[in-house]
Amino acid sequence: MTLEDDAINLHRLLKGKIEIQSRISVENVFDEGFGHDGGKEKNSLDEKEINVKGTLGLIYTPGVAYVAESIGKNKELAYDYTSKWNNVAIVCDGTRVLGLGNIGPEAAIPVMEGKSILFKMLGGINAYPLCISSHDKEDIISFIKMIQPVFGAINVEDIESPKVLEIVERLQKELPIPVFHDDQHGTAVITLAALINALRLLNKRLEEARIVVAGAGSAGYGIFKILLHAGCRDFIVTDSHGAIYQGRDSDMKYENRQEETTKLERNGYRDKDISTTGTRYKLEIAKKTNPSRLSGRLEEVIRGADVFIGVSGKGNLLTQQMVRSMNHDAIVFALSNPDPEILPPDALQAGARIVATGRSDFANQVNNALVFPSVLRALLDTRARLLDEEMLVAVGCAIASLVEDTQLREDSIIPKVNDARILPVVIRTIKEAIQKHMETKLS
Amino acid sequence: MTLEDDAINLHRLLKGKIEIQSRISVENVFDEGFGHDGGKEKNSLDEKEINVKGTLGLIYTPGVAYVAESIGKNKELAYDYTSKWNNVAIVCDGTRVLGLGNIGPEAAIPVMEGKSILFKMLGGINAYPLCISSHDKEDIISFIKMIQPVFGAINVEDIESPKVLEIVERLQKELPIPVFHDDQHGTAVITLAALINALRLLNKRLEEARIVVAGAGSAGYGIFKILLHAGCRDFIVTDSHGAIYQGRDSDMKYENRQEETTKLERNGYRDKDISTTGTRYKLEIAKKTNPSRLSGRLEEVIRGADVFIGVSGKGNLLTQQMVRSMNHDAIVFALSNPDPEILPPDALQAGARIVATGRSDFANQVNNALVFPSVLRALLDTRARLLDEEMLVAVGCAIASLVEDTQLREDSIIPKVNDARILPVVIRTIKEAIQKHMETKLS
Repeated sequence: MTLEDDAINLHRLLKGKIEIQSRISVENVFDEGFGHDGGKEKNSLDEKEINVKGTLGLIYTPGVAYVAESIGKNKELAYDYTSKWNNVAIVCDGTRVLGLGNIGPEAAIPVMEGKSILFKMLGGINAYPLCISSHDKEDIISFIKMIQPVFGAINVEDIESPKVLEIVERLQKELPIPVFHDDQHGTAVITLAALINALRLLNKRLEEARIVVAGAGSAGYGIFKILLHAGCRDFIVTDSHGAIYQGRDSDMKYENRQEETTKLERNGYRDKDISTTGTRYKLEIAKKTNPSRLSGRLEEVIRGADVFIGVSGKGNLLTQQMVRSMNHDAIVFALSNPDPEILPPDALQAGARIVATGRSDFANQVNNALVFPSVLRALLDTRARLLDEEMLVAVGCAIASLVEDTQLREDSIIPKVNDARILPVVIRTIKEAIQKHMETKLS
Repeated sequence: MTLEDDAINLHRLLKGKIEIQSRISVENVFDEGFGHDGGKEKNSLDEKEINVKGTLGLIYTPGVAYVAESIGKNKELAYDYTSKWNNVAIVCDGTRVLGLGNIGPEAAIPVMEGKSILFKMLGGINAYPLCISSHDKEDIISFIKMIQPVFGAINVEDIESPKVLEIVERLQKELPIPVFHDDQHGTAVITLAALINALRLLNKRLEEARIVVAGAGSAGYGIFKILLHAGCRDFIVTDSHGAIYQGRDSDMKYENRQEETTKLERNGYRDKDISTTGTRYKLEIAKKTNPSRLSGRLEEVIRGADVFIGVSGKGNLLTQQMVRSMNHDAIVFALSNPDPEILPPDALQAGARIVATGRSDFANQVNNALVFPSVLRALLDTRARLLDEEMLVAVGCAIASLVEDTQLREDSIIPKVNDARILPVVIRTIKEAIQKHMETKLS
């Protein structure tokens, strides 16, 4: 049977990969034992004892009313008396599911259920897959604001760019809980970690490496920001029009259109289409990368590059010819899912020295699954709303450092998804970053 | 320790009564064993085998992409490949939590987590407690429409009336999945079941019994509708202004105001306040109950009544004096939570023959917990959007019939919440009701 058959069969047999479970057993809810009679106790609860029979009257009416009233007076107590402290909402509108594009919210469910499993197994988190039926930016923002009472943090997932970048910016300012954007932040962190180790193995320096990033969506933008902060100097981001450089026609057109739109908007006009397809993120990329203002298609700008990072959503984008045109000891990260920009055997055959994909069935799985469970765990634990490049770079370096020199090989540049060392090191790193940030603010 | 201390302690120790669990074990996700190598299988999945090691590449990228794509082409498959078929959203805005009023969405979480436990233990359902931060009717409707892709049914819970009645009406028309309103439908069904058995024990007839329902919110409206359909003729509903009767001043004022509002709305005016405080539900009650147009406060209209049903949200509303003024063999259902309209010992002392509350710590727990797990199970299984009085009355009768003549006693008029016979009998009843409805439509 093929991978496709097996995946479909497993999902059909399971009919849902996750479920909601009670943290109290059936006996402890319904059996006789503990009980209250009109407020006069028959029995009482030990301070440290939760393994008590017959708690229906405590977890439900009448007892639960006291808990509800307490939280009503001080909503902070929701963190103590409910699962809010450990709940993450995975919010997806189905417009950019993996690299498959806009296949709808229902189609996103199996992916988000898979993420929920990883959240639980790797971070101990309850992650609710909320795949929603509106694609409208304002609807999505208002949806997330509405559900925030139940959650300790939000994970934005597989929403099309650039709309999602605006959504995340807005929510990070306006929500009282942390907002993580997996495609942007998670992918950036694990890409940096893998890049650090690949360059370390090949004795190249991050500051000098020529890097080409294919794709300027959420992942491309996140990688751009983290690489810049990590000290990369010579890198180019490409989109479907080729290399992004300052003054590029397509971006200038956008910039001019934006000016017009702003004028129109001042007069009450609102063009949803323009406001959601804008590329001010590309203008930012243009300004801060590609110092020599190289133009041209991927096959032109990739010549002589040390590193290719593919987050284009386009399978088979990178040809063997292009790999051959790269610098010696080429590093190829073909990260689009499920179809990478080039299959690893092909890249290796064309001379690439280190190859990674986002998939678990090849060596070097560079996937945000190595990041989101532990980072969200840390954000839940600290309740920090801070999520800056400084912190993300630190997490990337920390994950990279888990691979010791003696273990570092071409087919083993990053830890496995389920490496138990990731969680504690990421939590420690984030706590230190927050501490440092607070000290900087104080001084 | 008091009930309050015990309830708070238990919740503080648990820090959340529910959690999300994977339906696959850690070993079966991460251990070596099953694996695919770039699409060429090393191993393959038995048709009936889900206990296979190393399924990460199936439940997550790359394998899950095939599942997502299939659903993208035919979204019906979400019922087969994900937990949608078994997921219910409990939606609450925190405006009417138990009888505690508007205490906010955070305060509603422990109550909804308690309901989620009962959904799972009694109906095998994954119920997601979604407590939301907007009170606006249109926001709530749009929220529920947005989340529907992930759910097989919606359970609306503890939202203030009459806003919620309009929300439920709209959603039942506009959503592709079943919508259940626990406070309205669930409470009505279990109240009818308890009433049937109480009258049976006392040899009184439903058609002749004089019934006073205190409270005209969701529960009162639901009870009004089910009693009417079940054949009650002599009943009165009271609200904070006293008995509802045709031509009552406060309702007429509303009716006139409505006319004005409608005129204004035609000219584009939208008064949110008026549209959410309307009482066309009370006008409907006035038209179909209280045939002798009795007016007056509860203490006046309750004189000589056979049955009192309290769903007022007001503890201690019913005095012993009022109970004494009722007919002989009085039935008192004091269903408000956590504080019933009268405490059972007081009602019994004042001469009531049968007393019930919504709480688990007194005899005769008349609580929608006896209804929502099984009804939602049936709605999920049948995917029926039908939820009419015919069906609700049938379910009420079916639950009542579980108490055999030999078991029927004053302190045992309905089954226990966890009576294992409820689920199958409710499922059978609902399937029969659907069958009957379809036959009627065809003939």
